[in-house]
Amino acid sequence: MSGYGSRSRFEKASRFVDVNTKVPLEEAASTTPLHDTYGIITPSSLHFERHHSGVPEIDPATHTLTIHGLVDLPLVFSVDELKRLPSVSRIHFLECSGNGRSEWRGGSTESSVQRLHGLTSCSEWTGVSVALLLRECGVHAEASWVLAEGADAGKHDRSIPIKKMMDDALVVYGQNGEPLRPEQGYPLRLLLPGWEGNSNVKWLRRLKAMDRPAMTREETSKYTDLMPDGTARQFTFDMEPKSIITRPSGGDTLSGAATYELTGIAWSGRGTITRVEITTDGGGTWTDASLQSPVLPRAHTRFRWSWHWDGRESVIASRCTDDTGYTQPSIAELIKVRGVNSNYHNNGIQAWKVASDGKITNGNRA
Amino acid sequence: MSGYGSRSRFEKASRFVDVNTKVPLEEAASTTPLHDTYGIITPSSLHFERHHSGVPEIDPATHTLTIHGLVDLPLVFSVDELKRLPSVSRIHFLECSGNGRSEWRGGSTESSVQRLHGLTSCSEWTGVSVALLLRECGVHAEASWVLAEGADAGKHDRSIPIKKMMDDALVVYGQNGEPLRPEQGYPLRLLLPGWEGNSNVKWLRRLKAMDRPAMTREETSKYTDLMPDGTARQFTFDMEPKSIITRPSGGDTLSGAATYELTGIAWSGRGTITRVEITTDGGGTWTDASLQSPVLPRAHTRFRWSWHWDGRESVIASRCTDDTGYTQPSIAELIKVRGVNSNYHNNGIQAWKVASDGKITNGNRA
Repeated sequence: MSGYGSRSRFEKASRFVDVNTKVPLEEAASTTPLHDTYGIITPSSLHFERHHSGVPEIDPATHTLTIHGLVDLPLVFSVDELKRLPSVSRIHFLECSGNGRSEWRGGSTESSVQRLHGLTSCSEWTGVSVALLLRECGVHAEASWVLAEGADAGKHDRSIPIKKMMDDALVVYGQNGEPLRPEQGYPLRLLLPGWEGNSNVKWLRRLKAMDRPAMTREETSKYTDLMPDGTARQFTFDMEPKSIITRPSGGDTLSGAATYELTGIAWSGRGTITRVEITTDGGGTWTDASLQSPVLPRAHTRFRWSWHWDGRESVIASRCTDDTGYTQPSIAELIKVRGVNSNYHNNGIQAWKVASDGKITNGNRA
Repeated sequence: MSGYGSRSRFEKASRFVDVNTKVPLEEAASTTPLHDTYGIITPSSLHFERHHSGVPEIDPATHTLTIHGLVDLPLVFSVDELKRLPSVSRIHFLECSGNGRSEWRGGSTESSVQRLHGLTSCSEWTGVSVALLLRECGVHAEASWVLAEGADAGKHDRSIPIKKMMDDALVVYGQNGEPLRPEQGYPLRLLLPGWEGNSNVKWLRRLKAMDRPAMTREETSKYTDLMPDGTARQFTFDMEPKSIITRPSGGDTLSGAATYELTGIAWSGRGTITRVEITTDGGGTWTDASLQSPVLPRAHTRFRWSWHWDGRESVIASRCTDDTGYTQPSIAELIKVRGVNSNYHNNGIQAWKVASDGKITNGNRA
């Protein structure tokens, strides 16, 4: 018996922490072991991490959220005060816009789904509506953007259109039934359902209503997408529909011709997944997978499909469609529009190559 | 950065472990801190525990599930073999049938919602359909019950009607995205959506198809309900519709007349919650609370309601209704039918008494 339980000592699934990033470096990231997770909820202990300036240790008794700028009444909220306000819980994925970045330029020599796509996770979040907080402060009609700032050493900040803030943004303090984890922004983070991870500012300490974006470092030098014509896309917040087969996947070895369950996750920052299709012949033909209910907007959706493998070399992949009608493109289709200079927003189809000996590798490699 | 994260050192919410039950005793139990949990997912580390013979430490590489009895082909499955079969994920509550037992006879002097009702938790479970396994073994038409047996020291076992086994029973290996926790039956447990906790046999090692119930100790001397006429109800599997306000609740002190969010959870082993009502005048009048989506069958459902407390003594409570039309009764109504000799299946309305100084205590006390 214990007050706070632990997993079995026989279980070892871990986030992959880049060996170069064990100290708080600009590129610090760790990935969710997607191959070894079930259903749609990611255990908080295995939620991916992406930090620009380390993980601050914050005492919730002294942390505050300040709301100011174009408002009638600037307010400072303690964490306890926020917890007393009307609350909301929602199940949403969070994905780093750099997830799958290795696949822009020919595909990684890595094969593990965790290494390639493990910068996405899904949790039940609980918090307070940002619209309620902004209205409480009397936000001005001319406020069109809100700067969100974190309490980490680098004061990570992003400008967010007021429309998103009034639509469905939350200041969350709960994750999977308990307080946020430190590496997810404890005690408060901004949650922008379906938007790129870095805009969901962690360790949130300030919201400033403004009449234009602040043009912070993160939205000028960094989280933009260089297009083939030399211009850059900016403020590309939506995470586009994407799916991946997580099991079996790169690194697995099938033990001979037999029936296997193909399972994976699909999600769309624009809405709800309506369809996931599977190919086992490299995109020649596609068949519908079944979707595990509940299928929730802007949440991971679990899909499954039974595959009878005949033992011959095969290329398997999934593609998804959401309720806006958008279908996940191939990487080639994506490159036609976006070129190969992007680091972010690669939602192309992930292929896995199954060799005749059952060994599975990254099928995106030429 | 870490492979497997931990919560903040500022967070202390814990299961309450009875001081008499730190060794594996017959009455060992620990309760979920419902007051300090959010949404509908219970963190696996805080899922309630109820053990009859301690928590075995099982190596999944050597654990097996045997299916035998009235079948054409008895089979033994390894954990890895089960994981290769078609899988299912579902969000369901688990409740000990003894949850709230203190409230049968005048109400506990305890006031904490954790101590009174913390033997309920809710997780996303992943596993294999029992129907698939039984069909694979060629279960006989005359098999009407299935004995489920655990691998704990006491070989906890229960007889389960075949209808439930074929309807929606699962052998689960996943909980909230990762493997089951040891105290929840690692590596395998039976999951009977909506049925009393003890029938969801942990550390599952055997299913035996039979033409009658086995009449084990747990279904004769123990998990029965003594009725006023001296007979006992047996095989009372369904967990009836129940709701509780978890915040504010016993032990809280309101800081003066103001608006407070009342929030809590409702669930029904018979289906889906359709309505939760709140009273703040001891049952004189009731008003609908709002239900947080998704509202899922046989899962905790989060409800919320804004209460303007005028500072006067009040008795607050919630009651729920499910899609079968059943409305949660008062404890007095329950006692009229069931008498006061029951230990199990108390789904009566839980009242909280708010004194004029804001202090909240168990409102079930006379």
